[in-house]
Amino acid sequence: MSIEIERKFLVKNQAWRSLAVGTPYRQGYIANSQGRTVRVRQVGNQGYLTIKGPSQGNSRFEFEYPIPLEDAQFMLNNLCNPPLIEKQRYKIQAGELIWEVDEFFGENQGLIVAEVELTEENQIVELPEWIGQEVSDDPRYFNVNLSTYPYSQWTEGNSM
Amino acid sequence: MSIEIERKFLVKNQAWRSLAVGTPYRQGYIANSQGRTVRVRQVGNQGYLTIKGPSQGNSRFEFEYPIPLEDAQFMLNNLCNPPLIEKQRYKIQAGELIWEVDEFFGENQGLIVAEVELTEENQIVELPEWIGQEVSDDPRYFNVNLSTYPYSQWTEGNSM
Repeated sequence: MSIEIERKFLVKNQAWRSLAVGTPYRQGYIANSQGRTVRVRQVGNQGYLTIKGPSQGNSRFEFEYPIPLEDAQFMLNNLCNPPLIEKQRYKIQAGELIWEVDEFFGENQGLIVAEVELTEENQIVELPEWIGQEVSDDPRYFNVNLSTYPYSQWTEGNSM
Repeated sequence: MSIEIERKFLVKNQAWRSLAVGTPYRQGYIANSQGRTVRVRQVGNQGYLTIKGPSQGNSRFEFEYPIPLEDAQFMLNNLCNPPLIEKQRYKIQAGELIWEVDEFFGENQGLIVAEVELTEENQIVELPEWIGQEVSDDPRYFNVNLSTYPYSQWTEGNSM
């Protein structure tokens, strides 16, 4: 088990783009209820199955297991509700932290979000200059919600 | 992935009991919706995570992965809704088939069910003399339902 503590931001310019090469991610959700999320993910040629527990602040515990690619593909195509999340993930080192910038495609085309994983809930984070507004607490940006209520369906001022 | 095709029966006497030694199972459910079941199971000192898809007749596909015992125990104790399913499983060879007799404890104390896994939906099954009424199609006997509506709460003639 690991504890996932993360903060999430929008980006305010394209300066991050020259700092890393992206990797394709495809993911979907087998379940999302009672604060428990069961996610299937394909990263390049590797599959993963991930169980996450309820959020407490910006933290939640998670268990992640590598699984065969063909299992992940079968589950993505047959067990997860469409639309799947399709994104390119860029990992960018800034000081001691690694930022993950997710550029979404498909029904979330146009959305770009930067996440940083922390080791403590109250850790001080130095923000790169391309980081914009924080959206950690906005549930619309949770990936699991982007699969049921994708960015292309949002309207100005809309909230869940 | 494997396809699970199984039929389930009550037992009508105790003759099965001398045919095998039981192994303790403890299991719970992280999710059960839209025909998808996510099960955590402890068998002796091994943990398992299992994803099952929707039933079609007596068949459903399943993916099972061994996971560390401590992960399984954490999830059973913190993520699965009580009551957990506690049972002793006896594996009994009869001809070419292996019967699994589950003797339940805890909130399902008193219930004993025998399952047989088949390779084809319409396979002919020779029933051992201790096999009683078939309950394959009665959803009350699904283990996932025994965790939400345990045997001790059933009343005569009750159905889901």
